[in-house]
Amino acid sequence: MSTLNSATLTLGVCDYPEHVPENEWTAHAQRQKELGLAYVRLAEFSWAKIEPQDGRFDWQWLDNAIDIYTQHGLKIVMCTPTATPPAWLIQKHPQILAIDAQGQTMRFGSRRHYDHASLLYREESKRITTLMAQRYGNNPAVIGWQTDNELGHEGTAVSYGGASAMAFPQWLSERYQTLDALNQAWGCAFWSQDYSDWQQVNPPNLTAVRQPNPSHALDYQRFCSDMIDEFQQVQIDVLRALSPGRFLTHNFVIFAQEFDLYKVAKNLDFVAWDSYPIGMLEFFATWESEETKTEFARTGHPDLVSFNHDLYRGIKGGRDFWVMEQQCGHANWAQYNPLPAAGAVKLWTAQAWAHGASSVTYFRWRASHMAQEIMHSGLLQQDGRADRGYQEVKDFDPSNFALEKVNARVALLHDYNSLWIYNLQPHNKDLSYWHQFMMFYSALRELGVDVDIIHPEQLANKNYALVVAPALTLMTPEIATQLHHTAEKCPLVFGPRTAFREHSGRVAKHGQFELIDTLVGVKLANFDSLRPTISQQIEQEDKQASFSAKLWCESYVLTTAIATHRYTDGPMQGMAAVSKHEQVSVIGALSATLIKSVLKDVLTEQGIDTFELPKGLRLSRRGDTTLVLNFNQQDVEWHGNTYPGVSFTDL
Amino acid sequence: MSTLNSATLTLGVCDYPEHVPENEWTAHAQRQKELGLAYVRLAEFSWAKIEPQDGRFDWQWLDNAIDIYTQHGLKIVMCTPTATPPAWLIQKHPQILAIDAQGQTMRFGSRRHYDHASLLYREESKRITTLMAQRYGNNPAVIGWQTDNELGHEGTAVSYGGASAMAFPQWLSERYQTLDALNQAWGCAFWSQDYSDWQQVNPPNLTAVRQPNPSHALDYQRFCSDMIDEFQQVQIDVLRALSPGRFLTHNFVIFAQEFDLYKVAKNLDFVAWDSYPIGMLEFFATWESEETKTEFARTGHPDLVSFNHDLYRGIKGGRDFWVMEQQCGHANWAQYNPLPAAGAVKLWTAQAWAHGASSVTYFRWRASHMAQEIMHSGLLQQDGRADRGYQEVKDFDPSNFALEKVNARVALLHDYNSLWIYNLQPHNKDLSYWHQFMMFYSALRELGVDVDIIHPEQLANKNYALVVAPALTLMTPEIATQLHHTAEKCPLVFGPRTAFREHSGRVAKHGQFELIDTLVGVKLANFDSLRPTISQQIEQEDKQASFSAKLWCESYVLTTAIATHRYTDGPMQGMAAVSKHEQVSVIGALSATLIKSVLKDVLTEQGIDTFELPKGLRLSRRGDTTLVLNFNQQDVEWHGNTYPGVSFTDL
Amino acid sequence: MSTLNSATLTLGVCDYPEHVPENEWTAHAQRQKELGLAYVRLAEFSWAKIEPQDGRFDWQWLDNAIDIYTQHGLKIVMCTPTATPPAWLIQKHPQILAIDAQGQTMRFGSRRHYDHASLLYREESKRITTLMAQRYGNNPAVIGWQTDNELGHEGTAVSYGGASAMAFPQWLSERYQTLDALNQAWGCAFWSQDYSDWQQVNPPNLTAVRQPNPSHALDYQRFCSDMIDEFQQVQIDVLRALSPGRFLTHNFVIFAQEFDLYKVAKNLDFVAWDSYPIGMLEFFATWESEETKTEFARTGHPDLVSFNHDLYRGIKGGRDFWVMEQQCGHANWAQYNPLPAAGAVKLWTAQAWAHGASSVTYFRWRASHMAQEIMHSGLLQQDGRADRGYQEVKDFDPSNFALEKVNARVALLHDYNSLWIYNLQPHNKDLSYWHQFMMFYSALRELGVDVDIIHPEQLANKNYALVVAPALTLMTPEIATQLHHTAEKCPLVFGPRTAFREHSGRVAKHGQFELIDTLVGVKLANFDSLRPTISQQIEQEDKQASFSAKLWCESYVLTTAIATHRYTDGPMQGMAAVSKHEQVSVIGALSATLIKSVLKDVLTEQGIDTFELPKGLRLSRRGDTTLVLNFNQQDVEWHGNTYPGVSFTDL
Repeated sequence: MSTLNSATLTLGVCDYPEHVPENEWTAHAQRQKELGLAYVRLAEFSWAKIEPQDGRFDWQWLDNAIDIYTQHGLKIVMCTPTATPPAWLIQKHPQILAIDAQGQTMRFGSRRHYDHASLLYREESKRITTLMAQRYGNNPAVIGWQTDNELGHEGTAVSYGGASAMAFPQWLSERYQTLDALNQAWGCAFWSQDYSDWQQVNPPNLTAVRQPNPSHALDYQRFCSDMIDEFQQVQIDVLRALSPGRFLTHNFVIFAQEFDLYKVAKNLDFVAWDSYPIGMLEFFATWESEETKTEFARTGHPDLVSFNHDLYRGIKGGRDFWVMEQQCGHANWAQYNPLPAAGAVKLWTAQAWAHGASSVTYFRWRASHMAQEIMHSGLLQQDGRADRGYQEVKDFDPSNFALEKVNARVALLHDYNSLWIYNLQPHNKDLSYWHQFMMFYSALRELGVDVDIIHPEQLANKNYALVVAPALTLMTPEIATQLHHTAEKCPLVFGPRTAFREHSGRVAKHGQFELIDTLVGVKLANFDSLRPTISQQIEQEDKQASFSAKLWCESYVLTTAIATHRYTDGPMQGMAAVSKHEQVSVIGALSATLIKSVLKDVLTEQGIDTFELPKGLRLSRRGDTTLVLNFNQQDVEWHGNTYPGVSFTDL
Repeated sequence: MSTLNSATLTLGVCDYPEHVPENEWTAHAQRQKELGLAYVRLAEFSWAKIEPQDGRFDWQWLDNAIDIYTQHGLKIVMCTPTATPPAWLIQKHPQILAIDAQGQTMRFGSRRHYDHASLLYREESKRITTLMAQRYGNNPAVIGWQTDNELGHEGTAVSYGGASAMAFPQWLSERYQTLDALNQAWGCAFWSQDYSDWQQVNPPNLTAVRQPNPSHALDYQRFCSDMIDEFQQVQIDVLRALSPGRFLTHNFVIFAQEFDLYKVAKNLDFVAWDSYPIGMLEFFATWESEETKTEFARTGHPDLVSFNHDLYRGIKGGRDFWVMEQQCGHANWAQYNPLPAAGAVKLWTAQAWAHGASSVTYFRWRASHMAQEIMHSGLLQQDGRADRGYQEVKDFDPSNFALEKVNARVALLHDYNSLWIYNLQPHNKDLSYWHQFMMFYSALRELGVDVDIIHPEQLANKNYALVVAPALTLMTPEIATQLHHTAEKCPLVFGPRTAFREHSGRVAKHGQFELIDTLVGVKLANFDSLRPTISQQIEQEDKQASFSAKLWCESYVLTTAIATHRYTDGPMQGMAAVSKHEQVSVIGALSATLIKSVLKDVLTEQGIDTFELPKGLRLSRRGDTTLVLNFNQQDVEWHGNTYPGVSFTDL
Repeated sequence: MSTLNSATLTLGVCDYPEHVPENEWTAHAQRQKELGLAYVRLAEFSWAKIEPQDGRFDWQWLDNAIDIYTQHGLKIVMCTPTATPPAWLIQKHPQILAIDAQGQTMRFGSRRHYDHASLLYREESKRITTLMAQRYGNNPAVIGWQTDNELGHEGTAVSYGGASAMAFPQWLSERYQTLDALNQAWGCAFWSQDYSDWQQVNPPNLTAVRQPNPSHALDYQRFCSDMIDEFQQVQIDVLRALSPGRFLTHNFVIFAQEFDLYKVAKNLDFVAWDSYPIGMLEFFATWESEETKTEFARTGHPDLVSFNHDLYRGIKGGRDFWVMEQQCGHANWAQYNPLPAAGAVKLWTAQAWAHGASSVTYFRWRASHMAQEIMHSGLLQQDGRADRGYQEVKDFDPSNFALEKVNARVALLHDYNSLWIYNLQPHNKDLSYWHQFMMFYSALRELGVDVDIIHPEQLANKNYALVVAPALTLMTPEIATQLHHTAEKCPLVFGPRTAFREHSGRVAKHGQFELIDTLVGVKLANFDSLRPTISQQIEQEDKQASFSAKLWCESYVLTTAIATHRYTDGPMQGMAAVSKHEQVSVIGALSATLIKSVLKDVLTEQGIDTFELPKGLRLSRRGDTTLVLNFNQQDVEWHGNTYPGVSFTDL
């Protein structure tokens, strides 16, 4: 579906006419058009304006707004307003509210105050979606729909009681059929956890000693993910029926991790995400050092941003995606919210394009005078003056950015089951799935290599020069099969903790690597969770290079593989830190330089050029274009050229 | 009302005869008199001793105690005992208990376990107050009353359920009349928050994603403030009727911020506060550095203490105030509770006088053998030996300290509405209203200048040489009018974030400065919330001086003002950091040296002498006396004199 | 009771056949026997396997398992499975669940989800214990029993509602008889806390301002301790009757502090504890520096481990104890879980023996494939290969380690009442009872001196060369009598805060030292709680040495004592920091070097040799053997010999 019939990047903006007096709407639409915007995103959170009381509707304001945008040649991305059920609906049906991990009922007064498992709320969600689709579904200006808003964000993916608690036993019984199967899968022999009645199974919060069974917690995560999927599907079904020919998408969030995006996105036409590079570094990337947070405080870190682009490009198998909310000034929700550097908005827009975005939507048009987001900026100041971002968008001509393919020759494998089980038992306070994953991703970007991020099941029929599985800790027979096929085609590199857990969350009978042992040719010797004040030394087998690892080290017993690197101190001294069996390597130690070194060697063997990019300078390629992106605030010299601070350059 | 018919400072002590065997009372009274104390504060928290069971009274012990003090020539400040409703009362009426932010009912077993909105508890409070006033209200020894104890302290100002939750909708409906008005004021168009029934409005805690509407939260703060006011007024009415000619006061707390002190104090004769300089620095002043906390660990920081004195002197418009509890040894409630330096008790007493106190009451007579405050000191050790503070009080002759006027020529403007809205959306984890306010206050004290702290509405008919509004972020038409009048009389200096919010908590239609734009002659360009590892450079327009700012910077578009200082790096490079329009300056950056420099220039223009005082050395003036206070533990040289560590000197 | 008829150390292992397919059991038993293990600990947490539904039993699997172990010559330590009541039992009797400090009911799904006060649960516990004892109590292979598992661990000692809240008033009324007595003991005159009905008394959580009366909290701690005692006694009574001739023990935890071990252990034959040296340092010893945690990350700190050994040896008055769970690889529950250094398992085993263990049981046989402890190691890897610990056990011949006496000549006095009241009002965020206690314990171990840790009531009929009371802050007449008797026999050294509280938690009428004032010959001058950035200087009276103290300093008024050390700066300058009266010293300041210096002088006077042991090198003696234990990873030179890293050497 060509959403805007455009061969080049398009730009839009999130607008909330309901926050602005009606007599200002025409002027706003005119300025949006003049700025070169192609569309507005509308009606997000507008339920109480549309239906101020149960069954009493006011469509007039929205009809008027759409008319005005249409008259100015702007297209409309319509939102279902279901992220904010109105006060009267909560008063009528308090049981739709979610329950937090401490057992408290969440209250009205903010957003996403609902339990995705609530059938009552799904009915209400279907009702309002139907009414909106009936009214606007065939409006020629409406080009597509966004479902809800940032599903599950800010801790709302999981409800620990109410509708979810009631639905969980049923979900389990459908999945496991028998309690014996459940007890076996979860390993309930441990600590006398066997269940003899489905109704005995609670959400995994508030357990004594605050330590739930990880298989129990893993299944609850899957259940909540499924509830989100089902919740959204109700809207998708309505919109497909009543708004034919329009795209359906959703605005996912930064480093989303609470549900399975591959599943939840499967019936969308493409995915979108909300990109806030500065808050991403300050708030989400908890593993980054204070030094990095300081250096990139006004631009965000290039790899964090591009990782999310690459992730979302891969969710639907490489299809173009949208940035549905693009930071265009300071945000309001991190601990600190510095002003972006001059040029950052242009840089972020170009980077989004380079990583496969077909459209970038700035958040938001005018800064809010009211409520929770008063401290958040927009393209316009609160009094209507153009803010800094407005000027940058004005300077940016999207027609220079053609929608060609991103042709990455390297794939990173990602799976939410691995993410969940990793984070449920990290074994080291400072480790997480994303942290480990990003070490591999950044190594590749520092080498100037473009990357696809895909699910292992997408490997079929793909031809990459290299496939890397940074943290594929949960292994299934289906994934193992894909890996075996892949290994016949190209080199494979695995990170630590690979293939340690089964689908159930248990460890396989024969321990780590069971399903891929012939591929890797090693068995686990030991893993080692280092406190952050300790490091572990590693040497290349030919003694040409040495490395220092932190936080996590694994050593291997070699069956058919050889060791390419060994530990030179500590309890695992002399043992293999990196193994190689035919084209398959396993890197057991978290060392940024080691990871880069191993990957560089494989890339070179595969004939892929690598570079040693300076800090904050990155290459991104789309079609035949290579952009040099400088996220530093100062100029950077590289390969004889000077790249100005906060800039992008067509190489 | 001359409370003790004294032309000089008087001293007293908080005593709890009910904690001590009756046969020791006479000896204690005798020693109190010998020490030069004029009065004791009595009966605080004594309800269960007076009324051990519902309707069964025991007045005898208190009659006896008062007799003994009276026989020794001591006067009595009587307390209503309502901060601690007895166990039987809670058992009878559990619904008077307050609810915490996590939704839990607070339990009996400590203090202030009641909801100020509870009409039931107000009745009980009225009943016991009436009985006490009937019995002691006309006793010649009783010179005055303290209501309750430290109202709202330690998180008890706000109850998130029960009586408060029930009363809030009614309070709102009286204030807004219509739900449309409420929805408009709170900006409920945002996130579909419109209310269609008053009963839909909850306290602002436990909202989903833990982000309440700031206008909602602001009104809840005002509501809780009003409940405290109403709660206390019940007692005031009783005491005025039954104890004529006695003063009424209340002992407020350090950096009180949970209710509007101007309102709550309006029907008191004067205010009192509880001064614990060491815990104040360690526990309350979260913005102070470890270095400062270390250097002043045994004296407290002079500016923190004097700020509270000046604040309380201003609450009733410059009237003398009392210190109702003066630390006279180690306290027990901070993370660390070091012993005060030798001389600190005398120094604090002299400083209190210099800032306008007419009476200083030491807390407490003898250290407690029991319960929560066992680790707190008194003038006497637990075994009755004189503790260090006793010796210092003995050395201190209050008759040398005449009750003259404090004649400050500079006023700082303070308002709880600004405090609340600032702290509800600080936009920077390390910022708060008091933090910003104290940067301006300390700048003036470092310059050796005396300061009044007043509410903007007190400006009428005042003649200051300089008025400074450090953090007046909430602007109303009434305040704006006062500022316009003031600007005709003297220079005005504003701090960052000035006039950014309206009474409702919203931003004004025309953004920052709307109501005072002709005064300041600027518009906001941008604000910038800096992470603590970043600083921002600023240069004076004449390039004679440069400064470094942290945490917060604003830049301005000049309309009629000129720039006196500009940013020299960062995203706002070249823009105005400080503006001046006629006599009105706006300082946009949090830089202690910049603030001091700007204020010094204005003071010099106004003919006020300034000094460069060494760290920890301060000047305070009352009447014709200037005290040099040295809060350092070591001697300090200044202007050719040596000031001993921990001392005060009449200049 | 000679538990294994062995004159030398025995080794065993914790095994869970119910986690393993039955066809593997024989092979496991065979390998256990081959490894030299003497016994297995069985059936812990196995309730749901034994009784999968209410009244439906499956004993077969356990019968089979016992048969197999027996056939291989392994003895059995049987556990009551009561730490994990099954799901059906919780479903049937949800009221047995405990309530946490925030008022939430703990849920099924982990362990120890019960309230020890629940009579209903005690009945169930008695029922399952009776059935197990009837079945296995006279089985010749069964040599003894472990009750439950790690009673009260991980915050489960205290329930703040439910059965405990209901039982507490009754417990109080039995103890105090009258409310007057309670009100007096708790000092309820303070803050109007007097109770007029037993039912008014709640658990001490959720009080307003979160500050319970310390006497109230102290009694709640004692009550919960008694509930644990009563809970266990039900099982003891059953097992004594039905399993004659078998030992009864319990596996207590590291730095246990939630109940009175002397009481809870009184009807056991001997005590056991669970030793995890690495997690102990990382997780429990919050007072240790990052430097120490780094240096000993792979071995644990020798003093922390040996302290627990000495503590448990003393619980039953010097009787041999068991290590019931000995870490033999990485654990899973600390923030970081590094791999033990090579040799650590042998070192820990030898150290346990040297401090009086008669048996060491490794945890666990094979690493779990499932549930909460997947990341925890065992002697075997998950796939059955021998892990590092297995090899070390194989190398370790327990028959070389004879079960002789540990003959310590120095005793440290320990009491849970002191621990509780100290920690309830530490007066300094960084202080705790264990922290202070360990400063004295480590001083002695650095001097190479063996130590008994005993309750003061155990002093009768003992003859030590030196008795040290590091933190005996709660003093009773009974303890005071013991101290007076002891002072006639040997020197006594007291630490800070000694004898400051009475049994009730109040301060004695005459303040600190009241009951031992003639012994110590001093009165308290002042105590001083230092922030961690401040230190306090101290000089020996002869000026030959000076010291620096942190966190806590007390100064003394000398009555009959002399000062041996005085403060040389700060508010207590010139006052006594250490006093001596005849053979009794009081050390008032927390300085490791001062404590060591004072103790060394007394030891020398007593003719006990002392050494200056290098960091991490320790001496431990049992019978005629002296082991030199090197907990450093590197070799250490001492007295002309080289001790290899991570080793023990028979001197």
